[in-house]
Amino acid sequence: MGVSARQFEEMRRRLAGSRAVESAGLPGRDVPVARVVLGVDPSLRGTGWGVVRVDSGRMSAVAYGTVKCPAGWERTRCLARIHEALRDAIREHGPEVCAVEGLFHAQNLRTALVMGEARGASMAAVAMAGLGVFEMAPRKVKLAVAGHGGAAKAGVGRMVQRLLGLDDAPGPDAADALAVAIAYVHEAGRVSTNPPRRV
Amino acid sequence: MGVSARQFEEMRRRLAGSRAVESAGLPGRDVPVARVVLGVDPSLRGTGWGVVRVDSGRMSAVAYGTVKCPAGWERTRCLARIHEALRDAIREHGPEVCAVEGLFHAQNLRTALVMGEARGASMAAVAMAGLGVFEMAPRKVKLAVAGHGGAAKAGVGRMVQRLLGLDDAPGPDAADALAVAIAYVHEAGRVSTNPPRRV
Repeated sequence: MGVSARQFEEMRRRLAGSRAVESAGLPGRDVPVARVVLGVDPSLRGTGWGVVRVDSGRMSAVAYGTVKCPAGWERTRCLARIHEALRDAIREHGPEVCAVEGLFHAQNLRTALVMGEARGASMAAVAMAGLGVFEMAPRKVKLAVAGHGGAAKAGVGRMVQRLLGLDDAPGPDAADALAVAIAYVHEAGRVSTNPPRRV
Repeated sequence: MGVSARQFEEMRRRLAGSRAVESAGLPGRDVPVARVVLGVDPSLRGTGWGVVRVDSGRMSAVAYGTVKCPAGWERTRCLARIHEALRDAIREHGPEVCAVEGLFHAQNLRTALVMGEARGASMAAVAMAGLGVFEMAPRKVKLAVAGHGGAAKAGVGRMVQRLLGLDDAPGPDAADALAVAIAYVHEAGRVSTNPPRRV
């Protein structure tokens, strides 16, 4: 059901100024097409991040990594480290937009709280750098890299490696973050019934 | 069951070097007695904060406020604002330690996630400023300002006003944050079976 970014831009140009269309709320119309996209997979002990560049329709990895926080570190020390690492990665690699996975299943309130804390530290760093943040449906992320919604973790790493032409498969956290960025590139500018949601 | 900070320090001095006592893990021994304490009550739309000073056993309010984020703001814009506001408050008022409420009851996973995000943005700012963060049991916070564990919100504001000698009762979010700081002052250096926990 998707259209290419170019086709979509043409549609937008032709429809510009039409209040009827404006109020109909075309899905996906607010999702910017970006050349350099940061994907983040926040978690307290291992936040993955990855920057993907698009050139003439071809994707490549600019940089990626995992913010590792040993189990012995206090929670707030991890949050500071996560914030600083993402701030530094953004300064160094200059992404234009950020994508994260959206609603997920947590086992219990405690887990949701700790995951939320890692997301909050991450997203504050990204928003303070001036980037818009978009949430991707987890199923779409898996779909974008593996062709079906239930891809195993090892599968994501290998597919990300192939899609980005990397010599080695990235570690699981960085692979998840790169997968989110790849999914964003796929979705941006498409007409979709479930577009990335700015948060 | 509490002892004064001075009595406690004397106990520590006398017991210093005793491995038997060290391994017994005296509760509360790692909770520093601080002269200037920051209390934070994180929430996405209205994070309360308050700085309390202790001079010769007398408490006073240095500054307090609420970080207001309109309902129309995107979540990540709020997280950035919360982080920046706490960073600035710490720079201006120089607290030595930070206290937040510990585990709480969230209605559902979604609520816990959003509350966690506000906590994460807050705690990253505090930890990046080099402050230790301690979690206080919610019941102890209410107890410290109102004498019993189930004080109503309006009651907390009025009791905080009286305890700190303020002309007016602070708004509810700032009052909750000041209450956390007051509870920390009460607990620090005491021997307790449930001391503030560094996180």
